Amino acid sequence: MRATTIHAPRDIRVSEVPDPVIATPTDAIVRVTAGCICGSDLWPYRGENDIDAGSTIGHECVGVVEEVGGEVKSFRPGDFVVVPFCHSDNTCAHCRAGMTSACVNLGGTESGQAEYTLVNQAEGSMVKTDGEPDESMVPSLLTLSDVMATGWHAAVAAGVQEGSTAVVVGDGAVGLCGVLAASVMGAEKVVAMSRHEPRQDIARQFGATHVVAERGKEGGAVVKEITDGVGADAVLECVGTDAAIQTAFAIARPGSTVGFVGAPHGVDLPVGRMFQKNVGLAGGMAPVRAYLPRLLKLVLDGSITPGLVFDATLPLDEVADGYRAMDERRSIKVMIRP
Amino acid sequence: MRATTIHAPRDIRVSEVPDPVIATPTDAIVRVTAGCICGSDLWPYRGENDIDAGSTIGHECVGVVEEVGGEVKSFRPGDFVVVPFCHSDNTCAHCRAGMTSACVNLGGTESGQAEYTLVNQAEGSMVKTDGEPDESMVPSLLTLSDVMATGWHAAVAAGVQEGSTAVVVGDGAVGLCGVLAASVMGAEKVVAMSRHEPRQDIARQFGATHVVAERGKEGGAVVKEITDGVGADAVLECVGTDAAIQTAFAIARPGSTVGFVGAPHGVDLPVGRMFQKNVGLAGGMAPVRAYLPRLLKLVLDGSITPGLVFDATLPLDEVADGYRAMDERRSIKVMIRP
Repeated sequence: MRATTIHAPRDIRVSEVPDPVIATPTDAIVRVTAGCICGSDLWPYRGENDIDAGSTIGHECVGVVEEVGGEVKSFRPGDFVVVPFCHSDNTCAHCRAGMTSACVNLGGTESGQAEYTLVNQAEGSMVKTDGEPDESMVPSLLTLSDVMATGWHAAVAAGVQEGSTAVVVGDGAVGLCGVLAASVMGAEKVVAMSRHEPRQDIARQFGATHVVAERGKEGGAVVKEITDGVGADAVLECVGTDAAIQTAFAIARPGSTVGFVGAPHGVDLPVGRMFQKNVGLAGGMAPVRAYLPRLLKLVLDGSITPGLVFDATLPLDEVADGYRAMDERRSIKVMIRP
Repeated sequence: MRATTIHAPRDIRVSEVPDPVIATPTDAIVRVTAGCICGSDLWPYRGENDIDAGSTIGHECVGVVEEVGGEVKSFRPGDFVVVPFCHSDNTCAHCRAGMTSACVNLGGTESGQAEYTLVNQAEGSMVKTDGEPDESMVPSLLTLSDVMATGWHAAVAAGVQEGSTAVVVGDGAVGLCGVLAASVMGAEKVVAMSRHEPRQDIARQFGATHVVAERGKEGGAVVKEITDGVGADAVLECVGTDAAIQTAFAIARPGSTVGFVGAPHGVDLPVGRMFQKNVGLAGGMAPVRAYLPRLLKLVLDGSITPGLVFDATLPLDEVADGYRAMDERRSIKVMIRP
């Protein structure tokens, strides 16, 4: 099959690789109808993560079931499914506690930007729609594979409450989905920190009541003003850099929690400040599957349209252009159609 | 008055210092009837915190109101009061949110091991008993000044739930009070990590269902066994060292929270592991005043007897012996009677 592969920093290709095969009875193979590029794919692209030269890349997709293993009972060929980026059995103690991203049988999508992908724990991981969804729904359904569920996790981890003030650090697709999540959860003030007009626009469509263009100390001062000097009730940290983490802790009110979902790179947590201010940290890799029933319902009934984060769509052959566009921040998030 | 002063590492004296005076209308002066030595007093004692030579030391006490400023309406001379180690107005936004240790008018007890002490925000900070309490109640009331409220904060921050498994790292007086707190909150299994028999005994009296003498990796393996391989639902970190923090994160189940209340010294938070396992961190300096109404009731009605943590009582003149005994772990916690 044709799949996106990475060979070195900034060297993305479309290569012929072996078709996935059912290796264990819990596997399924999905024909990818839409995949996309994640902000976290840019870490290896930029050479900030190790690269296994020639390996496939991409972990977000939706598609149609092609084949299932013997223990996969709820799905059959032809079903349209959302594939969470992490695969979980949904029966172990961690899954039962809602922490599917810590499943004892954890797997993950390895060829989301490709013609086909293998799902390791298909029964516990995938969710399907009733019949083939309308093409207009595909972008929003695709975000449930990772980015919308991850923004949602940031809001859950930060403890967003009805009537509260939530601040979102990071205006990537995850941050924008965090704005949407905080808004759905009933935050009265939702503050998006963003300097980029197209992203600010989406943030407002997603429910942001305030947009703060300032960064660092200046941004903190504006947030303080918005919160009457008290600080934010909940902070969603959706980047993963040390600068974003420090900003998050600077604007959080005492007793609040920073919800973090960006894989940390070079982060040095300010433990003294956390102790002094009683500001907690929670979050991590999103337990996508646990959130899917609710999020799928919200998408299908039209309550949310997270697919607005896609501002470009490319055929698989042009996937390298998509990486470039996201790396240069010309695109927020690029959808790939195999 | 006579007060405990510190002059250099391991140089504790009883000195004649000026009597405290009412400087602002929110102040009160309390005649200390019982004070005590805190685990955190050992940091400067051991030279691990800076020392302002000749300064008074000690921040936990109960006593009798001697004099009040013009704005202190709820207390008058003769009232028996618990004095939280941090003083708060109990009216600012942080106090109203229960975060009294982040009060905008934060003050603190500076001569708890002395004849008298000054309370900066007396109206908002102190709580009184109906009349002079029985002498037998004094130790437990004294713990409400800091150590019991701090153990309670660890349990609150860690999110201890009824029927859950809580593990307490640290067998100092705060850790033991954390055991008591987790037990009161209804944890089904309360695991005390302790190698010291007298501390193990108190932990059991406080409701520990399991005592784990092993440390580090071995201790983690035993906790894993107790929790059927899942890890602890809540971890109370009551030490503040890096070793204790690493142990806490190693035994916490995915999706749980480490509640930390020991002022961090040399701690390097394992941010990658926290992200990977979705284990959060919450806590800090305990908002003692916010917990006092409930804790005072529990002590007065005999539901809890946290005063058991005191295994020695010394007159003020012998306070230096008390520091030595705690430093050498011969005593768990020493009460000082001026």
